Amino acid sequence: MLDVIRSLVVSNTTKIVMLSLDGLGGLPRPDTGRSELETARLPNLEALASEAACGLLRHVGPGITPGSGPGHLGLFGYEPLAYQVGRGVLEALGIEFDLRPGDVAARGNFCTVDADGRITDRRAGRIATEVCVRLTERLRTIRLPGVELFVEPVKEHRFVLVLRGAGLSGRLSETDPQVVGAPPLPVRALEPAAEPTAVLANAFVDEARRRLADAAPANMVLLRGFDELPALPRFPEVYGLRAAAIAAYPMYRGLARLVGMDVLKTGGSFADEVTTLREQWEAYDFFFVHYKDTDKAGEDGDFDGKVAALERFDGHVPDVRALGPDVLVVSGDHASPSVLAGHGWQPVPVLVWSRYCGADPVTRFTERACAAGTLGIMPAHHLMPIVMANALRLAKFGA
Amino acid sequence: MLDVIRSLVVSNTTKIVMLSLDGLGGLPRPDTGRSELETARLPNLEALASEAACGLLRHVGPGITPGSGPGHLGLFGYEPLAYQVGRGVLEALGIEFDLRPGDVAARGNFCTVDADGRITDRRAGRIATEVCVRLTERLRTIRLPGVELFVEPVKEHRFVLVLRGAGLSGRLSETDPQVVGAPPLPVRALEPAAEPTAVLANAFVDEARRRLADAAPANMVLLRGFDELPALPRFPEVYGLRAAAIAAYPMYRGLARLVGMDVLKTGGSFADEVTTLREQWEAYDFFFVHYKDTDKAGEDGDFDGKVAALERFDGHVPDVRALGPDVLVVSGDHASPSVLAGHGWQPVPVLVWSRYCGADPVTRFTERACAAGTLGIMPAHHLMPIVMANALRLAKFGA
Repeated sequence: MLDVIRSLVVSNTTKIVMLSLDGLGGLPRPDTGRSELETARLPNLEALASEAACGLLRHVGPGITPGSGPGHLGLFGYEPLAYQVGRGVLEALGIEFDLRPGDVAARGNFCTVDADGRITDRRAGRIATEVCVRLTERLRTIRLPGVELFVEPVKEHRFVLVLRGAGLSGRLSETDPQVVGAPPLPVRALEPAAEPTAVLANAFVDEARRRLADAAPANMVLLRGFDELPALPRFPEVYGLRAAAIAAYPMYRGLARLVGMDVLKTGGSFADEVTTLREQWEAYDFFFVHYKDTDKAGEDGDFDGKVAALERFDGHVPDVRALGPDVLVVSGDHASPSVLAGHGWQPVPVLVWSRYCGADPVTRFTERACAAGTLGIMPAHHLMPIVMANALRLAKFGA
Repeated sequence: MLDVIRSLVVSNTTKIVMLSLDGLGGLPRPDTGRSELETARLPNLEALASEAACGLLRHVGPGITPGSGPGHLGLFGYEPLAYQVGRGVLEALGIEFDLRPGDVAARGNFCTVDADGRITDRRAGRIATEVCVRLTERLRTIRLPGVELFVEPVKEHRFVLVLRGAGLSGRLSETDPQVVGAPPLPVRALEPAAEPTAVLANAFVDEARRRLADAAPANMVLLRGFDELPALPRFPEVYGLRAAAIAAYPMYRGLARLVGMDVLKTGGSFADEVTTLREQWEAYDFFFVHYKDTDKAGEDGDFDGKVAALERFDGHVPDVRALGPDVLVVSGDHASPSVLAGHGWQPVPVLVWSRYCGADPVTRFTERACAAGTLGIMPAHHLMPIVMANALRLAKFGA
C-alpha cells in the first residue's frame, strides 16, 4: 500500500498538522456513564469536530492493545503488524539512544537469583532508578572482543544493552524464562548468521553475573527483545513531505526519527511545542506534534487528571488553527482509559479537518460520537493516505 | 475472494439492476454546508433509501481517488489493486476500440520538439481534436513488418496506438520523459520477451517523427501506458449471471465488455437507457446501467448542474422500480465533488434494496446519512457478493 501511495504523490504547498494526544481514548466512569472526553469541556475540539470528518482508529488489530511504538507507526502510515520493531530497539529509542544501522539492542532487567543461580525475582523488587544507574556502571566496564558495548539505565530495574560492531544479528532468543525458580536461559541464535552474536551476548551475561555477584538484591540480568533498527521506508520519501516531529518526550522523538522525520528542539511543555510549531512553520510541510499529559493521567488511573489534561489541550487548539494549516488531524496512538490505569485496546477518536474533508454528522470529539463519523472505524495506517488526499497531494489512480 | 464467490453461486431467476451514477459523491458547498445530494430534491431515492440497506463505498483504498477504470472494476467485484489495467488499454476502451487478446495498446500524445529533438510542449498546446484527427491520418500510413497497426484519434492531443500480431508484449517503458527540454526516451523492453515489440514501437516512433516533421505545432509523439488486455475473470462466469451493460458513453461500454458483459445498443439519453432496460428485461439476470450527467457537472465544477442531474436521475427511479427487480443497487464509480471540479477520494453512497436487505436507520441518500448505514464503509468489491446474496444466488459456506 505504501508503494501505491508513493507512486501517486504529487507536490503541493499545503501544510499538514497531526496532533497526537497520547492515550487519548477512554472509557466511561461507572458512576456517571461518561468517558473522560465526554466529561471534559472541550469547546474548541467540538467546533473542530463539527467541521471535520470523524471516526475511530484501530492501530494494530481488533482487541489488540498497542504499545507506543506500534501506535505511532500506525499514525505515520505503517501497518504495525508488517513493520515490527523489537522491544530492545523501542527501549533504546525511548531514551533517545543514538541507535545505528547494524547495532543490536536488547531490553535488560536486573533480577535476583539464588545461590544455585535460579531466579527468585525477575525484577529484583523493582529497584530504584538510582540503584539501576549504579549497577549499569559496573556493567559498562565489561569488554568483549570486536564489539563496542553500551549499557544504558532506563527506569527502575530496566536497562538497554547495545552491541555495535560488524556482522552482528539481532535474531537471538531471550534469556528470561518468564518463571521464577528456573535459571536464566542461554541466548540462542535464531539463524546461523547470528551465532557469533549469540556467543557475544552469552559472554556479556557471564561477565554480568560475575560483576553483580556481590550486589543485592539485583545480582543478575535478563535480556530480551534483541533486535536491530528496522529498515522502514522513510516517511519524507514515501509521502514527499518535509516532515518534522515536535515532542517533549524522548520515546516519541525516537519513533519520529526512526521513520526519518526531522526532530525539532523544543521545550518541556505543550505550550513550548506550539511555539516551536509556529517558529518552524515555513520550513516544513508536515508536523507531528505530541501531547503526553493525557496518557500520564490515564496510566495513573486519574480520571479527573485526564479530564483536566484534555481541557488544557483544548485551550491550545485555537493557536494551532491560527497558523492556517490546510489539513489538521487530531487523534492519538492508543487509548489509556483511566478505569484501566493502562493502555487499552479500544479504538481511538480521530478527526480530519480540511476544506475537502466532507460532510459528517459528528459534532463532539468523543468515542461515542466519532463512531458515527464518515471516516468509520478504520486501521490507523489508513489515516495518512486520507490526510494526503485532503492536502491535495495524491494523483488519481487509473485513468 | 472471487473464487470463493464463484464456488458458492447457485442458479435462480432473480433479477438485479445496478444503477451507477458516475461521480455520484460530492462535498458540501461552503456557503450552505450541504453537498449536491443534500441540496437536491430526491423523493424517489429517499423512499428507496428508507427501504434499503445503505453505506459508503471505497473503490481503491483510503484517500485514493479512483479513475473510471478502477472505479467500475470495484463495482463489478474486482479488487482494483489486484486487477490493474494499463492506461493504453483504458484509452482504447474509452473510444470503444475492438481491442483483442494479444494486442498491445499505448496512450499517445502529440507533442512539440525543437530542431534538436528536445520537447518544448508535451501536449503540443492541446491541439484541437480536428487537428489530431488529421495528424493520425498521417501516422496510419506507417507500415511495420509482421504487425497490423491502428492509430485512433481521441480528444485534443491524445491518440491510441494499437499493435496487433503474434508474440507481442505490453511490458514496455514509456517514451515521455515527463519534462520539457529533454528528448523523448526510447521504448525499452521491461522483460526479455518484449524485445521484439520494443523494436517495433521504436520503429513506429522514428517513422512518426519523419511524417510529422513539417507539421506544427505537433511535430512528434509521446507514448505511454503500454499494456495488453488483462485476463480478468469473466463476470458472467464468476457470478453465473446473464449480464448486460447499458451505457451511452463508450468508456463504460468498454469497461463492461472487458469483464465479459453483453453491451446493449441504446440511445444517447438516460431515458433511452431505461427504455433499453425495459425492452431487454427478460433476456438478462443482471443489468449495469450507467448515468453520466452527475460526473460531467461535477468535473465542470457546476454544483447546481450536478444537483439538477441528480434530480433528473431521481425522476427515472420509479420507471426502474416498476420493472420489479429483485435487487436494486444505486451507487457510483467515484466521487466528483463540484468544489474539486474533478474526481475525489471520498467514499461514495450506496444503497442495496431487496426483500432481504435488512433493517437500516438511513432515510436519505446522502454522504452523511449513508455513513450511518448497515453496509458500513466498505471496499467497493465487497458490493457484488452482497448483491448476489440479496438475489438468493449464493449458497451457504461450510456445512
